[in-house]
Amino acid sequence: MPDLCVLGLGLIGGSVLRAASAAGWTAWGATKSPQDATAATSDGFDVTTDLDAALTRAKAEDALVVIAVPLPALDEVLRRINSVHPTAKLTDVVSVKAPVAEAVARLTPHARYVGGHPMAGTSTSGWQASTPTLFHNAAWVITAEDDSTPEVLQEAIRLALATGAHVIPASATEHDAAVGRISHLPHVLAAVLATVGADGGPLALALAAGSFTDGTRVAGTRPELVQAMCEGNRSALLDAVDDALGRLGAARGSLASTGGLAKTIEAGHQARQALESHRKAPRKNKDIDLNSPTAPKSLRTLGARGGRIVSLDGATARAQTS
Amino acid sequence: MPDLCVLGLGLIGGSVLRAASAAGWTAWGATKSPQDATAATSDGFDVTTDLDAALTRAKAEDALVVIAVPLPALDEVLRRINSVHPTAKLTDVVSVKAPVAEAVARLTPHARYVGGHPMAGTSTSGWQASTPTLFHNAAWVITAEDDSTPEVLQEAIRLALATGAHVIPASATEHDAAVGRISHLPHVLAAVLATVGADGGPLALALAAGSFTDGTRVAGTRPELVQAMCEGNRSALLDAVDDALGRLGAARGSLASTGGLAKTIEAGHQARQALESHRKAPRKNKDIDLNSPTAPKSLRTLGARGGRIVSLDGATARAQTS
Repeated sequence: MPDLCVLGLGLIGGSVLRAASAAGWTAWGATKSPQDATAATSDGFDVTTDLDAALTRAKAEDALVVIAVPLPALDEVLRRINSVHPTAKLTDVVSVKAPVAEAVARLTPHARYVGGHPMAGTSTSGWQASTPTLFHNAAWVITAEDDSTPEVLQEAIRLALATGAHVIPASATEHDAAVGRISHLPHVLAAVLATVGADGGPLALALAAGSFTDGTRVAGTRPELVQAMCEGNRSALLDAVDDALGRLGAARGSLASTGGLAKTIEAGHQARQALESHRKAPRKNKDIDLNSPTAPKSLRTLGARGGRIVSLDGATARAQTS
Repeated sequence: MPDLCVLGLGLIGGSVLRAASAAGWTAWGATKSPQDATAATSDGFDVTTDLDAALTRAKAEDALVVIAVPLPALDEVLRRINSVHPTAKLTDVVSVKAPVAEAVARLTPHARYVGGHPMAGTSTSGWQASTPTLFHNAAWVITAEDDSTPEVLQEAIRLALATGAHVIPASATEHDAAVGRISHLPHVLAAVLATVGADGGPLALALAAGSFTDGTRVAGTRPELVQAMCEGNRSALLDAVDDALGRLGAARGSLASTGGLAKTIEAGHQARQALESHRKAPRKNKDIDLNSPTAPKSLRTLGARGGRIVSLDGATARAQTS
């Protein structure tokens, strides 16, 4: 396994450093926060506030560098990487993938980059909230593009598996489209539903039961986190919102004209059953040779079919698919 | 307490018969289903398939008649009531209130009617699913209009409290507007979200986590129940859907133009906090004299402020309000 350099030690970055260390990786980190650096050091981790020093060591060891800073800080970190270690083996844990890939191509064009997105907890933050078990049983998306460097692709997968996650491969654009639909759109609709409900006044709130409580739960998330997440995936979220507007408008039209909602309700019921079927479906094992030139395509096909990588044996990925 | 005649013995009607009997009311019922009548009789209840006979007895005892049939069967039952006992003391447990009030005014113009809506379980059905505890701690809306007969208003409230529910008073149109926002709109949005998510294919379903699971949960409800409930409240639901379309369209416009979602997300967060505050708010006691000529107005004011009736002492309603 390679050495690991984690840049940014909030909830996600901190948990990556803890989990990888616990799995036996030689790992160090850098954070802008002196308090977090002190806390991490006293927790026994090799952490500095000197980003360039961490990167210099990554260059010397050819470590895998994990970018775990918030999206607004990404460009600054990429510029430092391009200055200190322009050919770094690079991955990240940011919640949107195409915009990160574009920034990497623009600011660190010689880096060997493979994107990542561990889909775990965002409601707390900071080093103090990080744990080595945050990614246990979580999905961790790894982007597989035709020009992905095989070595970095394998190392990024190895890191995700080492933290206890399973790996779901996808292209950056496939990832962004999917999370727009199943993560960002739910937040927008929860906000809309909460607002329309509360506009009904105290009587409506007094009558609100399970359907409203469940449908608005994520509107309780810290708004600045939701906003950053949704705005960061602007283009794909727009597509998802347009689909929702189209379907809601069709329901409105049908209710106004014929009074019928059968099509909307039936389609929603079938879709929900598809989710439940997906979760219960028996899974078949499948091996994918990550050294094959067609590995990125095989990985994307696996992800598009709802499959996942659950372990790695040398360069052979053990996958489960339905 | 008056005697009680329950027409329709599905989940709700059956549970009303069981709960009122357990609370010491003299109660009988009628159902179209010979199987349910046999089952109810063998469970020790006074149940017939002869609707007219049940109504003739209600007339002799001046019983409170509870209509607990599905909306599509309402008109037929009202015509029987108008034929056998046109001045009946009447309430109902249908999930929409203005359309029922209109049907009552049209088909049983001499009945003394006060509407009701116990907000409890709809995912199972039939006498076999009914229980005497279904309404414990549930909200039971009672409609208070300026021309409501005080005697029937009090008896309907007494019945609801006897089943273990608390009473939330509102006009029929206030009720329909509120449930359109907090019960029917959530079902429509859940259907739309489920469909847009599943349109993302197996990759999207594989990445779906809490926000999508919660936001689509009620799309798992039996579609014919959801459809009947939503279509029955067509006019108020249209208003709620239009509000949602307006807010979602505004979010779309803002995301497309400036890329910002702050207004949508902030408003949703504040609305969700309003729900949580409502549930945690300390409550003050308040008495309402139900024999006062202004009782319906006082009751509607209580409901509009998020208050509830928790007990009845003679004609004095003990209320809690925030």
